[in-house]
Amino acid sequence: MNFVIIGGDAAGMSAASRAKRRDSSLNVVVFEKTMDVSYSACGMPYNIADPTRDIDELVVRRAEVFREKQGIDLRIGHEVLKIDPDKKEVHGRGLEGEFSYPYDKLLIATGARPVLLDIPGVDLDGVFTLKNLNHGRRIKEYIRERNVQQAVIVGMGYIALEMSEALTELGIKVCMIKPNPRFLPNMDEEVAGVIKGVVRSHGVELYLGHGVKEIVEHNGKLVVRSDNLELDADMVLIAVGVIPNSELAKDISLETSIKDAISVDRTFRTSNKDIYAAGDCADTYHVVTGKKTYIPLALVANRGGWMVADNVLGGKFEFKGIVGTSVFKVFELQVARTGLDEKTAMSSGFEPVSVNVKTRSRAHSHPGSKTIWVHMIADRSTHRLLGAQMVGEEGVAHRINSVAVALHNMMRVDEYFQCDLSYAPPFGPVWDPTLVAANQLNKKLG
Amino acid sequence: MNFVIIGGDAAGMSAASRAKRRDSSLNVVVFEKTMDVSYSACGMPYNIADPTRDIDELVVRRAEVFREKQGIDLRIGHEVLKIDPDKKEVHGRGLEGEFSYPYDKLLIATGARPVLLDIPGVDLDGVFTLKNLNHGRRIKEYIRERNVQQAVIVGMGYIALEMSEALTELGIKVCMIKPNPRFLPNMDEEVAGVIKGVVRSHGVELYLGHGVKEIVEHNGKLVVRSDNLELDADMVLIAVGVIPNSELAKDISLETSIKDAISVDRTFRTSNKDIYAAGDCADTYHVVTGKKTYIPLALVANRGGWMVADNVLGGKFEFKGIVGTSVFKVFELQVARTGLDEKTAMSSGFEPVSVNVKTRSRAHSHPGSKTIWVHMIADRSTHRLLGAQMVGEEGVAHRINSVAVALHNMMRVDEYFQCDLSYAPPFGPVWDPTLVAANQLNKKLG
Repeated sequence: MNFVIIGGDAAGMSAASRAKRRDSSLNVVVFEKTMDVSYSACGMPYNIADPTRDIDELVVRRAEVFREKQGIDLRIGHEVLKIDPDKKEVHGRGLEGEFSYPYDKLLIATGARPVLLDIPGVDLDGVFTLKNLNHGRRIKEYIRERNVQQAVIVGMGYIALEMSEALTELGIKVCMIKPNPRFLPNMDEEVAGVIKGVVRSHGVELYLGHGVKEIVEHNGKLVVRSDNLELDADMVLIAVGVIPNSELAKDISLETSIKDAISVDRTFRTSNKDIYAAGDCADTYHVVTGKKTYIPLALVANRGGWMVADNVLGGKFEFKGIVGTSVFKVFELQVARTGLDEKTAMSSGFEPVSVNVKTRSRAHSHPGSKTIWVHMIADRSTHRLLGAQMVGEEGVAHRINSVAVALHNMMRVDEYFQCDLSYAPPFGPVWDPTLVAANQLNKKLG
Repeated sequence: MNFVIIGGDAAGMSAASRAKRRDSSLNVVVFEKTMDVSYSACGMPYNIADPTRDIDELVVRRAEVFREKQGIDLRIGHEVLKIDPDKKEVHGRGLEGEFSYPYDKLLIATGARPVLLDIPGVDLDGVFTLKNLNHGRRIKEYIRERNVQQAVIVGMGYIALEMSEALTELGIKVCMIKPNPRFLPNMDEEVAGVIKGVVRSHGVELYLGHGVKEIVEHNGKLVVRSDNLELDADMVLIAVGVIPNSELAKDISLETSIKDAISVDRTFRTSNKDIYAAGDCADTYHVVTGKKTYIPLALVANRGGWMVADNVLGGKFEFKGIVGTSVFKVFELQVARTGLDEKTAMSSGFEPVSVNVKTRSRAHSHPGSKTIWVHMIADRSTHRLLGAQMVGEEGVAHRINSVAVALHNMMRVDEYFQCDLSYAPPFGPVWDPTLVAANQLNKKLG
């Protein structure tokens, strides 16, 4: 049986590895457009921040290992351009010209790509996006060779913020700009305010409410132009989100959903029974709403790949869905969230009630304690926990996970409040910050 | 209505504060034997380690605040010696002589006391136990005044280990001794081995399999004598566990259970309908086994106090129970556990299957990553998660909580494996260490 996979990163290589491991007789063929497979895209900002590290350190497993040790027919530099669902073949262009390959089962794991602004100047030398390893490689090279002193980042999402830290660490002056006047609009205002304050305290300038009109070259510099603002830069990073690479699927009329992501069922099957999709190109289910969502996350891509492999091999694994847990680091802060924000809760038919609490990362009187802010949301009528957001200098990144597991179990706030969480003075107060928030939320729910 | 509370620490003062806050007309009277209330007992080792800190920094709220701001009739230096359940009175001795006080509802929150060895020499000057603030005060004073160079700790549990670190930090040479040849016998052998190695690497000498016969004074030193071993010391700490202070309850024939802890129902009521018990003097329910257990934990004491207050005021709050989550720090290690160990799982009627995995605290290639060991246990037939243990230099203390919440929800291993946990390179691998363990456990369960 031919199991053909389009795309050789998280979802694709997870599927390939697991399928081959479970059935070595299976012919597993992976077509990867770039020359890179299986790398930690999320690690790029940290790698870029450190000139002594090679970008290729981010490669988790090299192509040769997949080929020689695992017996996967991995073809890098091979772009699939068309799927023929009737003949069950893929067609594309590779290093040695055009190719066709028949499949029994096909996995589309083409990922997502950065949204590009539709403005003049985005193709100028020194204007970058950051998604795949090549992007990271080019940015790193450019910084090294061009003596970059000033950078403008368009966008203020996770990647943009991680890059603001990375560039600042390299001694580069960073300005960030975006049209929305709200900083991190999908987070609670108080939590977002804490983050904004810290980013600014490191000398990063934030221009909120400024749409970028064009990028031009002037006197050997790049100039990012907004209505009433001009920002000089040696380099510009556009980080305004991603869109799923779903064109191959749309060309053969597979169903798509939110943001044009490829629509899959709980077994990761598309609307064609022999074609699966997983990772950043596909939609998924949200446990809290029970509805479809599109949140590209590394863990979900890996897990999706595994489940596809299991199902291709005759399994019937059903994905329960995600709760949207994420964490990022920006300067000294850990920022984490899980579940719904108030806006999404409302639009999903809940009546969100929320609290904000400010607690400590260590016990009363224990030295070195830091502030932790917790924002927690529940549904007015059912008292179900809907989500949480947290920010602080320590003890945030993993603390969010107890709330995440609570969401997977549809716990009510009063039930969560009864959970027996760990306590020791160096690691937290007797009442875990998430329990303090749950208690306040309980009171508010009455 | 008179709500009388015996004991002014975690459970007692939590109950007093909450009761008074919810109904200011209630007459809340607390009798505390010592002169200290509401202090962080768990913080003592860290405080002792730092000569610049006053032991009284551990007091969370002073007696005056309870009295003046909260209107609680708090009587320190008042020891209750007898409960008269027929007359509904307590009798005792206070700073101004004997007293009696009538109650409508009574809470016994007398805590636990250190087990004292039944050997000659335990009452010598320089031999200590550590449970209440006075113990900590005396140890700190003794170290300061006597120029302590060598210490022997009898016992190797959490408190003993925390104190081995504290004393080592003060430049004191520490030897630890106990009769059981296994180090941390309630933990997995591999996890325990990691901890043992680190403790030893800091110069702490461990004498396992040595029962202490006597402590004697010789040439101005204390000598701890075992069968074929003599350990010199300037001070000796006996830390071999605690027993519930349940005498007042036993004197009036209230039911007791494990370790003679006062037996309570899910509302924290004892076998007398007007008498409650909470905190380290009472037993509790274990969520995983559904049966009674005795695990003295600060959070449970605080929570118990709250629930008693609510129930005294007419509520019907039922405690779901604990899962036995705990964490401690010893030197550079974080050690955490939740749920059952294999031995307890077996004796509780499960058929435990376990795995040990060794993973990393940060993403592949992210600098500064440390090893994390995870031991995870499930039931062979139901695949229910039963418990986990973890050790590592970072990312352990809060990570245990996602497993704890899973235990509260009786999750199966395959269900836990589907949980959407946080990921970012500085904080963990894509697959959280607990997910890696769950995956291995899943495979083993087949």
